[in-house]
Amino acid sequence: MKKQEIVLTGDRPTGPLHLGHLVGSLQNRVKLQDLYKQYVMIADVQAMTDNFENPAKVRENVMEVMLDYLAVGIDPNKTDFFIQSMIPEIAELTVFFLNLVTVSRLMRNPTVKTEIKARGFEESIPAGFLMYPVSQAADITIVKGTLIPVGEDQIPVIEQTNEIIRSFNRLYQVNVFPEAQPLISRVARLMGIDGQAKMSKSLSNAIFLSDSPDVLKKRVMSMYTDQNHIRVEDPGQIEGNVVFTYLDAFDPDTIKVAEFKRHYQRGGLGDVKIKQYLFDVLNQLLTPIREKRAEYAQERGEVMKILLQGTDRVRQVAAQTMSEVRTSLKLNY
Amino acid sequence: MKKQEIVLTGDRPTGPLHLGHLVGSLQNRVKLQDLYKQYVMIADVQAMTDNFENPAKVRENVMEVMLDYLAVGIDPNKTDFFIQSMIPEIAELTVFFLNLVTVSRLMRNPTVKTEIKARGFEESIPAGFLMYPVSQAADITIVKGTLIPVGEDQIPVIEQTNEIIRSFNRLYQVNVFPEAQPLISRVARLMGIDGQAKMSKSLSNAIFLSDSPDVLKKRVMSMYTDQNHIRVEDPGQIEGNVVFTYLDAFDPDTIKVAEFKRHYQRGGLGDVKIKQYLFDVLNQLLTPIREKRAEYAQERGEVMKILLQGTDRVRQVAAQTMSEVRTSLKLNY
Repeated sequence: MKKQEIVLTGDRPTGPLHLGHLVGSLQNRVKLQDLYKQYVMIADVQAMTDNFENPAKVRENVMEVMLDYLAVGIDPNKTDFFIQSMIPEIAELTVFFLNLVTVSRLMRNPTVKTEIKARGFEESIPAGFLMYPVSQAADITIVKGTLIPVGEDQIPVIEQTNEIIRSFNRLYQVNVFPEAQPLISRVARLMGIDGQAKMSKSLSNAIFLSDSPDVLKKRVMSMYTDQNHIRVEDPGQIEGNVVFTYLDAFDPDTIKVAEFKRHYQRGGLGDVKIKQYLFDVLNQLLTPIREKRAEYAQERGEVMKILLQGTDRVRQVAAQTMSEVRTSLKLNY
Repeated sequence: MKKQEIVLTGDRPTGPLHLGHLVGSLQNRVKLQDLYKQYVMIADVQAMTDNFENPAKVRENVMEVMLDYLAVGIDPNKTDFFIQSMIPEIAELTVFFLNLVTVSRLMRNPTVKTEIKARGFEESIPAGFLMYPVSQAADITIVKGTLIPVGEDQIPVIEQTNEIIRSFNRLYQVNVFPEAQPLISRVARLMGIDGQAKMSKSLSNAIFLSDSPDVLKKRVMSMYTDQNHIRVEDPGQIEGNVVFTYLDAFDPDTIKVAEFKRHYQRGGLGDVKIKQYLFDVLNQLLTPIREKRAEYAQERGEVMKILLQGTDRVRQVAAQTMSEVRTSLKLNY
């Protein structure tokens, strides 16, 4: 018997998923689907807010992301997958929610501020981009989500959602929406293979779940280690060393990792050797994912059907929620 | 055979319609429906942008406005009436259009600037209110409207719409939307019975189409005339005199009006007498409207049916447009 919480989570389909997603959210979803009702949204409308000049990229990646989901074990019998743009109720709810938030409140949202800076929008912020926390509030509330897995940096989005929920329930004297709670990931963000703080497709420092063994090997071999570890016999640093960070994250054999660390620190353990070991660890992790993914990729029609079936189920939930919203707003004709 | 233009027009259901609407837009619609395909939208979603704290008011006035439409002769066999909130495609299109407009562009919109000032929003502008020109662009384009009856002050809304249309067609290399053209009303705005420039429900200076003869008489008798016209024999001013402004606007007997003007100017024509004459003119104009309105008001169920049938037809048009939009955005799954 699943508990009463409703989980809403998802991804923007702007590229295939990588190891950072695996440790940061995907593995968590595989667990959450056994505990709660879980919805996983492919956020194509949100992806459009900063990819509106390249919709083909968004479209292609809907399937890539879906293949990744199935490959890691998110199970369509336990989780409802859906495509955001196919739920018009989200757009309808967004439009009503926009009345409950001021422009200056949106401008003050720390997540939005950071992302506006990161994208270099400066003075020409697309209105859709400024509004996306309101759109996210609609994503969450349309399925009455109560438990929202997020990183620390996304907490203001949940706060904004709850402000809207409280305004709505108070103004219209109803209790249509339960408040949402962030489920904050305890896993530290996975660094990129170049040693940068964040693994990201746009930084070209990612290992994708779909990478072939050859590509995986190339990426592991190019990893940032210790710049001063020139000869094998030199003592090496493990702090900020990507190889050891990844071993900590992915090798279940923690005793062996500890031994390797001591060996590397006192000298005598070459980068190529330890990278080869990391490659084996990662390849063992990724091989079943890659194989499962390749199987699903043979059946794209079936995969799309799964996605559309989930979308249909969410559409029914969304229609029910919008019906309650219309009644609250007295706009039920 | 109607010409190829598509007219979109409508009203916010925030109160019953008045004489200002009659001369400013309603009479025009009765003519336009014979020339073109015409859609008349009851803009409940837009009305919510500054009435979100009072949705009951919006809801009640949907029927009042519809009764006014039918009473003045807008004909459901020639015109499709529809309720904005029942076309979710408008919300969907709004969300995509928001990506094509910057926040600073919206802030610079002269119509929005004026209305923000008029409503005293100052720093706490609801996001929905700032966005309404984008929502209006979606209203127009969802039915591919090409001819939009507006007052001078609404021209920036059409300009904003055409900017969005050009961005959309250019970015996605399609030709989904024709540009819209304003059809500017040549009728000067009707002043209020208190002599203020604008007749408006919120200023309590309006004569409603539904006013009873008693109320009509009371309103005519309270009209602002010439403050210095104390005794009947005094010469009176006709400039800024509401009674003569209304006679110019509503009395088809222009020769008689000219005579009355001369008489008033040289003295000897009392305010009560000329007001009684104006009452007769207005009552003659409003009696058939009032009677027709009373008949329809007996059949609210039927009237709602007419409105919902129009809404159904528009829904089909809107679905077709959104299908083209989805294809353009490559979001057709």
